Amino acid sequence: MPDPSVGTGQAGAHSAGASPHVHPRHPRLDPLADRYAARTHGMKSSEIRALFSVVSRPEVVSLAGGMPAVTALPLDAVGSMIGDLVSGMGAQTLQYGSGQGDPRLRERICDVMALEGITDASPSEVVVTVGSQQGLDLVTRVFCDPGDVILAEGPSYVGALGVFQAAQARVRHVPMDDDGLVPEALEQALVECRARGDRVKFLYTVPNYHNPGGVTLSEPRREQIMAIAERFDLLIVEDNPYGLLGFDREPMRALRARDDQRVIYLGSFSKTFSPGLRVGWVLAPLAVREKLVLATEAQVLCPPSLTQYAVARYLDTQPWREQIKIFTELYRERRDATLESLAALMPPGTTWTRPDGGFYVWLKLPAGLDAKLMQPRAVAAHVAYVPGIGFYADGSGREYMRLSYCFPEPHRIREGVRRLARVIEAELDLHSTFDGVDTGSFRAVPASPSGPPRVVEPEGSGPFIGPANSDRNEDRQP
Amino acid sequence: MPDPSVGTGQAGAHSAGASPHVHPRHPRLDPLADRYAARTHGMKSSEIRALFSVVSRPEVVSLAGGMPAVTALPLDAVGSMIGDLVSGMGAQTLQYGSGQGDPRLRERICDVMALEGITDASPSEVVVTVGSQQGLDLVTRVFCDPGDVILAEGPSYVGALGVFQAAQARVRHVPMDDDGLVPEALEQALVECRARGDRVKFLYTVPNYHNPGGVTLSEPRREQIMAIAERFDLLIVEDNPYGLLGFDREPMRALRARDDQRVIYLGSFSKTFSPGLRVGWVLAPLAVREKLVLATEAQVLCPPSLTQYAVARYLDTQPWREQIKIFTELYRERRDATLESLAALMPPGTTWTRPDGGFYVWLKLPAGLDAKLMQPRAVAAHVAYVPGIGFYADGSGREYMRLSYCFPEPHRIREGVRRLARVIEAELDLHSTFDGVDTGSFRAVPASPSGPPRVVEPEGSGPFIGPANSDRNEDRQP
Repeated sequence: MPDPSVGTGQAGAHSAGASPHVHPRHPRLDPLADRYAARTHGMKSSEIRALFSVVSRPEVVSLAGGMPAVTALPLDAVGSMIGDLVSGMGAQTLQYGSGQGDPRLRERICDVMALEGITDASPSEVVVTVGSQQGLDLVTRVFCDPGDVILAEGPSYVGALGVFQAAQARVRHVPMDDDGLVPEALEQALVECRARGDRVKFLYTVPNYHNPGGVTLSEPRREQIMAIAERFDLLIVEDNPYGLLGFDREPMRALRARDDQRVIYLGSFSKTFSPGLRVGWVLAPLAVREKLVLATEAQVLCPPSLTQYAVARYLDTQPWREQIKIFTELYRERRDATLESLAALMPPGTTWTRPDGGFYVWLKLPAGLDAKLMQPRAVAAHVAYVPGIGFYADGSGREYMRLSYCFPEPHRIREGVRRLARVIEAELDLHSTFDGVDTGSFRAVPASPSGPPRVVEPEGSGPFIGPANSDRNEDRQP
Repeated sequence: MPDPSVGTGQAGAHSAGASPHVHPRHPRLDPLADRYAARTHGMKSSEIRALFSVVSRPEVVSLAGGMPAVTALPLDAVGSMIGDLVSGMGAQTLQYGSGQGDPRLRERICDVMALEGITDASPSEVVVTVGSQQGLDLVTRVFCDPGDVILAEGPSYVGALGVFQAAQARVRHVPMDDDGLVPEALEQALVECRARGDRVKFLYTVPNYHNPGGVTLSEPRREQIMAIAERFDLLIVEDNPYGLLGFDREPMRALRARDDQRVIYLGSFSKTFSPGLRVGWVLAPLAVREKLVLATEAQVLCPPSLTQYAVARYLDTQPWREQIKIFTELYRERRDATLESLAALMPPGTTWTRPDGGFYVWLKLPAGLDAKLMQPRAVAAHVAYVPGIGFYADGSGREYMRLSYCFPEPHRIREGVRRLARVIEAELDLHSTFDGVDTGSFRAVPASPSGPPRVVEPEGSGPFIGPANSDRNEDRQP
């Protein structure tokens, strides 16, 4: 240790437990600061993770997390099913398995994909992954060198942006509207990238019940986008965790069903069964699959056997299609509660999307408001959301927020929207009061004494609430 | 698709299932061949994976795989324990969890590490990973840019070499002997790297019951190596899956117990409980842990909840220390069978290590023999091992093989060693017959008509067995 006092200081910080400055603000305090790989430089805590400690408080209505309603599962049946798997098949379920994943599960995955029109998939083209997050990470590692460009909807799934950042890829957002990704905008982006000599590795898209957008790519646009991909020789990564969660409608036909060579498909059991098992998959042409298997072997050797057997047995023995209906019925009710409350309570100038499946509403605040800066006040008012800025790689999206209706019960959703509406109204009051005054981009707005629940000020802070305080939410909480 | 005929050809290959040429030998057959990331160029199937299809045949005695004896677990008790976890705690065990891992499990992990002298670890410094393989991948991603140098024992764990290759890091091997890594060789390597301006990111070491070496770093050498690390300001990654699997001896004191800032420790429940759960961990200084959590969130969001709860509950309610004794007793018996058979049967000139824990014996063939070239003949004689070449990043190690005694029962081990001895003797006969004749480095040696079980020649091959045929073993089998 070049400087023992530094080491001692760090050891002290360890034993102190959850220090408020876990993320080292002064590089000299981290003796390894000059040794990290370049890819770590842009790593930061996601907007969602930052809220973990907040949403676990029972008095807060969380419209932030995307946690499925797993308690709607028949837990006793699933429990005894998994218990039997271990008691009766421990030699398999507790042992190492193949890197590509259990063959029987891969067969059942092909059955599931057939519901979205993918009828030609072979189990040999499927790689089982630790959630579809790992699938996206593997695809990105296989295709992207630093500096490569990935096209993605604006906004995009925050977890995907984290993967792309870790790969040191550059993200170019392509706008969406109520019918999903705008084909003309995709074409324009491709033309511009080609003119600049950018290496565009793929389009990353969530066509169904977009996270966070809540919108679905329309059937005509699917055809248009496939035609553009053909014309520009563009690879598409279709991320589809929500495709079977439509309300009162049949599943859309997947992009992968239209081209088995140009589309790499990511699937997940996190929303149709359980996220705690972390079972997802990639469907890819054989040459790509070969590389994905090598990459996953280097990363995790093989996915957990027990969780794979649990999913395969669940699909074999439990009424999983009926269970998806139970889930979607429940989510539809919560979606309705959300949309009804928003329509009844939101002040003029607020707009939002109207999802017909999935988990999310994407809300735009009235002009001039900033969801990130408003967040501490919302938390003080006991309602949580995810600020839109986290869903863009380029720092835009401050006027947006994501509302998740998947987890809270309808009466809680209504209460949460009511609180949120009051917070927005209070912001609008402030905004009109300070209109024309330079408030440093709302960086230091006094907490409203007239607003609903008084802002709880962090210990040691002054009367002003701003980013310096909201940063506290970003300290790691287990 | 620029060339539809190519697409059609590939689709045909898909439906044909396990094609013998899955790995594209002609890049033009893969329309994406020019789009992969640079890190994929050196990816190749490991020597161990290549044997998967072989070792599953019941007539073959496999001394190849490193599969723990999970059926020695009390499967009924573990099954009902896990079933109860799902039935009773489904809201947690089937739900997303924290990226860092379940806090209760991290506490119990600290208890486990205390058995090896790590008494100052805090749960906040622990990151739960999908097996310790993911832990090593995360550490490597956090520290290594392409071209960085990693020091590692020669030989080294094949899965680690896969991680380092995927990170485009360069591996420099440091010799071992019966007392483990040779300190003088480590120092020499560091001096040479410094002189060349190499960026050495860390030493990767498996100090206990080395895979594949079977040797253990002695206590005096641990102190010497820590002193060298101090002098050269070297970071150490201590990979310790086997540390509690010593035969008739107390666990060695971990390197991490000697320096909490310079050593990053990787642990695993794969050998003390179950590999099919894929639960491992990293213990790292807080600043590093912070980066590891961000990296794992980008990779898998969070480790599976169910498997983490299963391990924590197992440690809470089952006699896990006694179970480790049951495992080690069983492995000791198999180690004895291996060493006794080797001593009784191996021809002169063959040497091997004598492990006092863990899973592996590292065997050196008599001069002139090549374990990789001999492999098809061994498989034909119904015994499997892993050729040593896979455990080196630099192509050396052809005279070595790894024998695993962890999985087969003692009578099978004895039979396997007997078969292996005959194969080696037959090789020696051939070798003396052809001595002085240029056989192209043994690239085309006729199958011995006098040897034991006649070599089964792959369909369509001539009377010569060589690498072109043994390559067949490397085709992917699900």
